[in-house]
Amino acid sequence: MKNHITTIAFDADDTLWINEPYFQETEKEFCRLLEDYLPQHTVSQELFKTEMQNLHLYGYGVKGFMLCMIETIARVSKHTAPIQMVSKAIELGQELLQRPIELLDGVTETLENLKGNYRLVVATKGDLLDQERKLKNSGLQDYFHHIEIMSDKKENDYRKLLKHLDCQPENFLMLGNSIKSDVLPVLAIGGSAAHIPYHVTWSHEQQDISLDHEYCIELKSIDEILKHLQNI
Amino acid sequence: MKNHITTIAFDADDTLWINEPYFQETEKEFCRLLEDYLPQHTVSQELFKTEMQNLHLYGYGVKGFMLCMIETIARVSKHTAPIQMVSKAIELGQELLQRPIELLDGVTETLENLKGNYRLVVATKGDLLDQERKLKNSGLQDYFHHIEIMSDKKENDYRKLLKHLDCQPENFLMLGNSIKSDVLPVLAIGGSAAHIPYHVTWSHEQQDISLDHEYCIELKSIDEILKHLQNI
Repeated sequence: MKNHITTIAFDADDTLWINEPYFQETEKEFCRLLEDYLPQHTVSQELFKTEMQNLHLYGYGVKGFMLCMIETIARVSKHTAPIQMVSKAIELGQELLQRPIELLDGVTETLENLKGNYRLVVATKGDLLDQERKLKNSGLQDYFHHIEIMSDKKENDYRKLLKHLDCQPENFLMLGNSIKSDVLPVLAIGGSAAHIPYHVTWSHEQQDISLDHEYCIELKSIDEILKHLQNI
Repeated sequence: MKNHITTIAFDADDTLWINEPYFQETEKEFCRLLEDYLPQHTVSQELFKTEMQNLHLYGYGVKGFMLCMIETIARVSKHTAPIQMVSKAIELGQELLQRPIELLDGVTETLENLKGNYRLVVATKGDLLDQERKLKNSGLQDYFHHIEIMSDKKENDYRKLLKHLDCQPENFLMLGNSIKSDVLPVLAIGGSAAHIPYHVTWSHEQQDISLDHEYCIELKSIDEILKHLQNI
């Protein structure tokens, strides 16, 4: 990573704070709810199928996830489930929307160290209001110059973000836990990326690939970025 | 309106293209669906109540509207409705998400006239992906320097938008059909506003107020803004 970095963008879910484990807890409860109709792991597969079918309509985030749980109840039960199950799925989703924010280790210290020296940005997918709520409840809001809630994180989405930030790719570093969303598209447009694996990853974001790229580094925890930036 | 305007922001739904009539058609069909339980106008009131209760969780947009239809089915039917009704509500919502874009009269000509002379921006509420889809399908994307999907349109949201656009309030003009969302908060922070009433307004946006403000004008149609800007 030999670029001259001026702007650092952080993914939010599972990079700044815990997210996927909450989704997976909710999904587990949901699958238990339907185990009279199908084994739990099959319900989980059916839910994932519904999510992929509707991704182009709903995008990412909890509201779409709730609608997919409901659609899956109808399909899996062959339209025989009582409506109480639907209400339970809404309840699960609303709980998910109100979970407290738990920061990951080293996040505050890292941001404290970087602020002033770099322009810090959040670049995340998900529901607009929900991500704003999480950022507000995280207490991290003041570290960031700009929050970009993106409908997707493909190459073109990053191009738009950089244009919007008036930033050249060689001055841009993205940090995140998803190789597919936070690393590969950023490298493809000429930016730098730091991958911080998280122990749980949503199937949709999983990608088996070895990262061997001049402008990419692999970190064990977020604070490791500090020594890398000093070495540039 | 004697300010020196450099940036013009447009509300999208019912300012650039038709939206509320589509929502109301969907709602009518939804109320018909439940008329075995309650008269249609009471179902409509119940739906509105559900929407207001969940606004802080879901924000604006079609996905939240779908979840509220579903919750209303359960409550209105006292949890006796068959799950097919839920599937029907999902179908109605998915249709709403896929309706073609119909531009309002004069929109393209107005934007064509303004482009180059002003920085044009879209400032709209709603679901991120859905609003991006509508803008893309409208064919208007290239007229705009920036698209801001806002989780709300209160004074503080406009302050953030202006900071983000690096624009002073006295150089900012907002055009839209909602007095509550597009006019009052913009005037309150020192900007200018043009109100273009639309024949259908969502109850949540209705506000009876007479507009008598130095920096506010009332337009019958969007193209009337051109002569006002020439007179500044």
